[in-house]
Amino acid sequence: MKREMKDGKLYVMGVGPGASDLITVRAARILAQLDVIYTPTGKKGSQSLAHSIIAEYLSPKTEVCTYHFLMKADRAAKEVVWDEVAQRLKEDVANGRKVGFITLGDPMLFSTWVFLLERMVSEQTTIPRWLEIVPGITSFSAIAAVSGMPLAMENQTLAIIACTAPEAVLEQALIQHDCLVLMKVYSRFARIRDILHRHNLLKHALMMADATLPTEQCWRDLATLSPDEQELSYFSTILINKNWQLSR
Amino acid sequence: MKREMKDGKLYVMGVGPGASDLITVRAARILAQLDVIYTPTGKKGSQSLAHSIIAEYLSPKTEVCTYHFLMKADRAAKEVVWDEVAQRLKEDVANGRKVGFITLGDPMLFSTWVFLLERMVSEQTTIPRWLEIVPGITSFSAIAAVSGMPLAMENQTLAIIACTAPEAVLEQALIQHDCLVLMKVYSRFARIRDILHRHNLLKHALMMADATLPTEQCWRDLATLSPDEQELSYFSTILINKNWQLSR
Repeated sequence: MKREMKDGKLYVMGVGPGASDLITVRAARILAQLDVIYTPTGKKGSQSLAHSIIAEYLSPKTEVCTYHFLMKADRAAKEVVWDEVAQRLKEDVANGRKVGFITLGDPMLFSTWVFLLERMVSEQTTIPRWLEIVPGITSFSAIAAVSGMPLAMENQTLAIIACTAPEAVLEQALIQHDCLVLMKVYSRFARIRDILHRHNLLKHALMMADATLPTEQCWRDLATLSPDEQELSYFSTILINKNWQLSR
Repeated sequence: MKREMKDGKLYVMGVGPGASDLITVRAARILAQLDVIYTPTGKKGSQSLAHSIIAEYLSPKTEVCTYHFLMKADRAAKEVVWDEVAQRLKEDVANGRKVGFITLGDPMLFSTWVFLLERMVSEQTTIPRWLEIVPGITSFSAIAAVSGMPLAMENQTLAIIACTAPEAVLEQALIQHDCLVLMKVYSRFARIRDILHRHNLLKHALMMADATLPTEQCWRDLATLSPDEQELSYFSTILINKNWQLSR
């Protein structure tokens, strides 16, 4: 019993942008050996994209625990769920289990996992022995790869910003950086396009949704695009490279 | 013969930060099926880190072609090599071969591959059928994962800058962004530390070299650190998160 407790471990794995074969070899190997995996539920309780990415690598013996992070609730309600899931993860590890936790993209970049990390580990210390974080392919690396638009090189700089950031922050970044990734575009597309037009950046920008998934879409001429804002995926992202010219 | 030509394809694969199991499942599968792989030579003609990462996935039937990108030569000399390698890649594809080209980290972010891409594909067009770019784990995702220091979340912003950038660019980014990745630190450490000290950021910064390799090193107290500058690895990177406090 004592020995089992020592062997408990939490593996937090980035599962990449969407395609199942864009997870790492390390994550694939770990997924085959888990006692339990924590997987988010999507809308209406359906299985999440993150779970569908890794399902083929899981052992049939692995217990699947679902939770729901309440992406649209207020902060207090979210914190209750974060407390709860962090507590359950710690208990499973203390019971000697091999525990998996998956996040889309990379776990340390714009991921809810960090709210759990804050609850489990002190900022001052190194990663404890019972925890391993496995990095994942970011959405912007995937978008750059499938669209063929490179991000920064040599002395160029890259800024990564969510479109939920204040407009002044966004504008300043557009002026100062060579390359930008604008995440979480969806309902903000019309406003973002106006800003890009004002900075004469539309011909250096493309937008992509659901990169590497069968539903993948890429827009290379944002000036003439008027997507129904309701239809734009949550996973729509704009890439800008001032040294790369897309349209005429 | 005609049919073989149509089947030729160039696979450009990011091989991640250093550990062999941090390549993607997709890259591992492609590597097993190549006719030829282009791999950079390191110092003194030795095999490169990129090659050592993927050696275990290669088929013994795959021909290995080496080249040397002359990282420290002048621009004109570098361009001769880029022209040459791009030409050889195109010829191999035209001859119907399955061709691999590997880059450390991600191929579209601070990678020499982009100089070849510019020579092979027009900026305006989508990726041609004879080319597939496979994204890779970036060094900063790996550093965040193994050090336990998260990068941006929610409305925070992240800037990625090489320390070869002008000091004014660096300072402005340090003021404006919540999180920063400073790449290519090595011989510039003393100067960078002075800048971080001036901005009161030393307690929010850590430095890592050779992340995920056996030679991995992490420094969490940059204020008291005085590494022999000559000894600092080329792959040393500083991560800064203003909302994460490392030392007392």
